Amino acid sequence: MIENETIKHQLNHRAIRAFKDQTLSEEQLTTLYEVARHTATSMFMQQFSILHITNEEKRKQIRKQMGNDDGRLHTMDIFFQAFQDTMLAVQNVINAAESMGLGIVPLGTVNDDPKAMLKVLDLPELTYPALGLQVGVPDQEPQLKPRLPLEFTTFENEYPCDFEVSELKDYDEIVQTYYDLRDANRRIDSFTNQINGKKLNTHQNKRDDIVEAIHSQGLALDFN
Amino acid sequence: MIENETIKHQLNHRAIRAFKDQTLSEEQLTTLYEVARHTATSMFMQQFSILHITNEEKRKQIRKQMGNDDGRLHTMDIFFQAFQDTMLAVQNVINAAESMGLGIVPLGTVNDDPKAMLKVLDLPELTYPALGLQVGVPDQEPQLKPRLPLEFTTFENEYPCDFEVSELKDYDEIVQTYYDLRDANRRIDSFTNQINGKKLNTHQNKRDDIVEAIHSQGLALDFN
Repeated sequence: MIENETIKHQLNHRAIRAFKDQTLSEEQLTTLYEVARHTATSMFMQQFSILHITNEEKRKQIRKQMGNDDGRLHTMDIFFQAFQDTMLAVQNVINAAESMGLGIVPLGTVNDDPKAMLKVLDLPELTYPALGLQVGVPDQEPQLKPRLPLEFTTFENEYPCDFEVSELKDYDEIVQTYYDLRDANRRIDSFTNQINGKKLNTHQNKRDDIVEAIHSQGLALDFN
Repeated sequence: MIENETIKHQLNHRAIRAFKDQTLSEEQLTTLYEVARHTATSMFMQQFSILHITNEEKRKQIRKQMGNDDGRLHTMDIFFQAFQDTMLAVQNVINAAESMGLGIVPLGTVNDDPKAMLKVLDLPELTYPALGLQVGVPDQEPQLKPRLPLEFTTFENEYPCDFEVSELKDYDEIVQTYYDLRDANRRIDSFTNQINGKKLNTHQNKRDDIVEAIHSQGLALDFN
């Protein structure tokens, strides 16, 4: 077993359900936000945001005691949890891999044609390929890709609804300084153009088979 | 910004799409599997498994070139990717937090009553609370919870279909040596009994509102 500081912590993970009455420092919080901000993102769309709850009343409503759950294997509920578990494990592996000097790329392509992929992998009922991950010895040194500034993704108590797309002007300019190694001679398009263009316009493709493929595996079905 | 070995790697993450023609050592592989095995798991159900593809023909079919995608914001496809991104970020944060000596517990409870939670958080259209995460200074030292042995979760090329539940006998005995701090006087039930009991038996609860709640946010809809 390879040992280093990262892996030591990863192998020693356990849920903590009792905490000292002590809030995190600004430095600790900012570091955690920065780490989240640098996580791998599908199609560079950066769709997640962090909602830090400091309001005590809201905290109470979130922190319900975990009781005995009566989940059911074919329901969306259980699929949802399996998907969560799987993604957390993927990132745990990514962190360990990178701490060993390896490189990784998530393969969202496993869902480009879900029905075909189920056949390729010959998967039995109640299984689904949530995400692929390629791991190897790096043979390139890509530029660090500029991510959305924290103010657009990390909020406290309330999710802001008064966002104007013009606020992304500075970030758009920063993104255009990035050269993707997949086309090293050309700067990439601005973030606004990327999420406003062909990635999201109305056009059906085989990724729309995801729901049908998941259902065909006996997963994420309606309760009845 | 706090700096340590883990965070250095996390802030320096970039996708690697070119690799040396060199396979990982057994030690590297085993370490990565062990890390995944120790990831936080919803309801201790350990639903993920790793399918390591070494078959060159299957590899080719998985490694399709990522083309320009025409995803659409209201589709399951895009929700799926957002969910993936979010979970990877959660685990990245968990690793950073633990490397700083903090403790964490994932709060799957944010989906115990999805419609109520949407109101608590007052979330706008196109957002959904995928998972909660509580972070703080640990005030307990739980026992390390014994996870499924790798042979039940980590496979090569093919997902095995000839599993017999009696194979879990040894693991069941190991699990029963664990004392959960939530009830420190009583050993926990065997894994087989846990997944065969009240967690999965037919019983409807508010977690079945997940699909409706997600749809009500304009997300994960059928294409039409």
